[in-house]
Amino acid sequence: MTHTVKGSAHKEQDMEPEVVLDFSTLKWQGARLEPIKEHLVNHIDLISKSPGDSSTRIARLLSRRLEIDEDELLITDGGDGAVRLIADAHRGACSLILPPTGMEFRQALHHAGHEVREAPEGTPLADLVTEGVDFVWLSVPSNPDGKVYRHRDLLTLLKKHPDTTIIVDLSMRKYVLEETLKVSDIQKYPNLVVLSSFSRAYNLAGLCVGYICARPDFINGLREDYVPTGISSLALEAVHYVLVHPASFTIPIRKWLRDARLLAKEIDKIEGFESKLSDAPFFLVECSSPAQQVAEYLLKEHHILVGTAAKGIDIHGNELRIAPLPHQAENDALIEGLRGWAEADHATL
Amino acid sequence: MTHTVKGSAHKEQDMEPEVVLDFSTLKWQGARLEPIKEHLVNHIDLISKSPGDSSTRIARLLSRRLEIDEDELLITDGGDGAVRLIADAHRGACSLILPPTGMEFRQALHHAGHEVREAPEGTPLADLVTEGVDFVWLSVPSNPDGKVYRHRDLLTLLKKHPDTTIIVDLSMRKYVLEETLKVSDIQKYPNLVVLSSFSRAYNLAGLCVGYICARPDFINGLREDYVPTGISSLALEAVHYVLVHPASFTIPIRKWLRDARLLAKEIDKIEGFESKLSDAPFFLVECSSPAQQVAEYLLKEHHILVGTAAKGIDIHGNELRIAPLPHQAENDALIEGLRGWAEADHATL
Repeated sequence: MTHTVKGSAHKEQDMEPEVVLDFSTLKWQGARLEPIKEHLVNHIDLISKSPGDSSTRIARLLSRRLEIDEDELLITDGGDGAVRLIADAHRGACSLILPPTGMEFRQALHHAGHEVREAPEGTPLADLVTEGVDFVWLSVPSNPDGKVYRHRDLLTLLKKHPDTTIIVDLSMRKYVLEETLKVSDIQKYPNLVVLSSFSRAYNLAGLCVGYICARPDFINGLREDYVPTGISSLALEAVHYVLVHPASFTIPIRKWLRDARLLAKEIDKIEGFESKLSDAPFFLVECSSPAQQVAEYLLKEHHILVGTAAKGIDIHGNELRIAPLPHQAENDALIEGLRGWAEADHATL
Repeated sequence: MTHTVKGSAHKEQDMEPEVVLDFSTLKWQGARLEPIKEHLVNHIDLISKSPGDSSTRIARLLSRRLEIDEDELLITDGGDGAVRLIADAHRGACSLILPPTGMEFRQALHHAGHEVREAPEGTPLADLVTEGVDFVWLSVPSNPDGKVYRHRDLLTLLKKHPDTTIIVDLSMRKYVLEETLKVSDIQKYPNLVVLSSFSRAYNLAGLCVGYICARPDFINGLREDYVPTGISSLALEAVHYVLVHPASFTIPIRKWLRDARLLAKEIDKIEGFESKLSDAPFFLVECSSPAQQVAEYLLKEHHILVGTAAKGIDIHGNELRIAPLPHQAENDALIEGLRGWAEADHATL
């Protein structure tokens, strides 16, 4: 894994410091991808084969796994593609977001000319004003702060605003232990739309495959706007592999959450840093100095990448976003890096 | 190659006869894909890497190869994706097509609610009526009949109708020897839009990568409608490979055209078949019996696939579309199959 990240960073950004450890991403980097890589290598001939109806075949299999009907599912070109597709299909609609939130929401809504309203930070779901609002966009767990809305609050939101479509990104659903929405809830709540992708929990961001689950007429409306059939044959084969080998993609979530707590505890011991643990394995860290300077130091001196506002994450200038890596030694390296910052004379940087 | 086609057909359509030789496709099946497959196998780690700015990097390289500027190029999710993107971005426009033509034009225009006008079959370009027409859609060589419009007629069309956008699919440009339009002509003719893809001439249909070349404001208009960033990292890496190894993808076009002439000559010797040679390696064959019955016989008895109207090709019910395969023995097998049909007692089929 380390070697790979090194390799790619090296090729593309010869002048940039190498990234050896990436704490900035929300991908589960512990995914054991050797078997799926081997499978794809054995199917490399697919580069010559038009996807054709593979997409339909995969959609059938995926809908069964998700326990929904085929006409309630649309496979998209990645998770961001799912967001863009819905936004574009409803140009000029009124959308409510709940900062801090995923930048893919902001970008897609801006691009599609939505009227974007922002709930004041920390507004409880029960207090959201949806008068004139067509769509509410949120994630469970929330990105970037890892917050998980209470299940009953989400259900109340769905019931209380039947005329507003509630769009919930569940692509990191497996990152939390709390009971929350599941895809098949779209059959109970006609105003619920679920988004997901294989990029984060499966660490398959290179494939760009996501999906949208909603009631059939909503899905049909999207199909009329644009039919994303351009998903490569290899990407579809990879999804097929994932669906028939679900056990290989189990996330050891209790361990990951425990690692997050341990890492946060160690960070809190370092002067100038205070972690804000969340319900998910990733969390924010408040810095007493500008977060971007800390990030640049970590990259240059320790080849460590952490998330900052400059990376397009919806956080403040004094915050870092961190997701622990699967191995203790990797997380220790981050602690060492932050200690290095705390002890260094930054005036000379 | 044969083995691969067998394998996939077998997996997906257990009840269908195996396809061993596919004369129905317009892909150049002689492409030597082993090196690019090996390259992708060595880069299989890309399944975990978000495409990010690879798309921009590839676009830069591709625009240089095509001798146009970066802002004159948009990479799309396949050739069909390119057609759909333009059609969708101009919903309700008036489009003129020149039958027989590619079904991807008809489908995309219908989907995007264009007013579709059809020029009477065989109308010379000089006689096209473009009053009130926003777009003219054509291919060089033309699909399905392999016709190549004369270069000076195309130039006259572009000059004579400055207010009509002429969209030309050049993805099979390398299939013909005639002088014709090239991508960089978009800089001379502001009303020219060129489409292409890596599916046919490179036999990489599984990757779903195409592109649109046009003046910057046209490209910008498309970007506003939809940004297809969902092209997988492996597909982009494949395009990169193609661009830095152009020599590996040279089509022996004189030989392929010669093979087509030889094949057509042999077909003409068989009772009930008459070939209509074109300027491209693929051509139509007129049958004295329903083409679909001939196709079904060839598939069932000889594991040979030929193009028919039932396969979504814009040809008549008594026509087959055929593209010779790279090896003599393969083309001989088609002749044998057609002879078998001519000699058989079809009443019993």
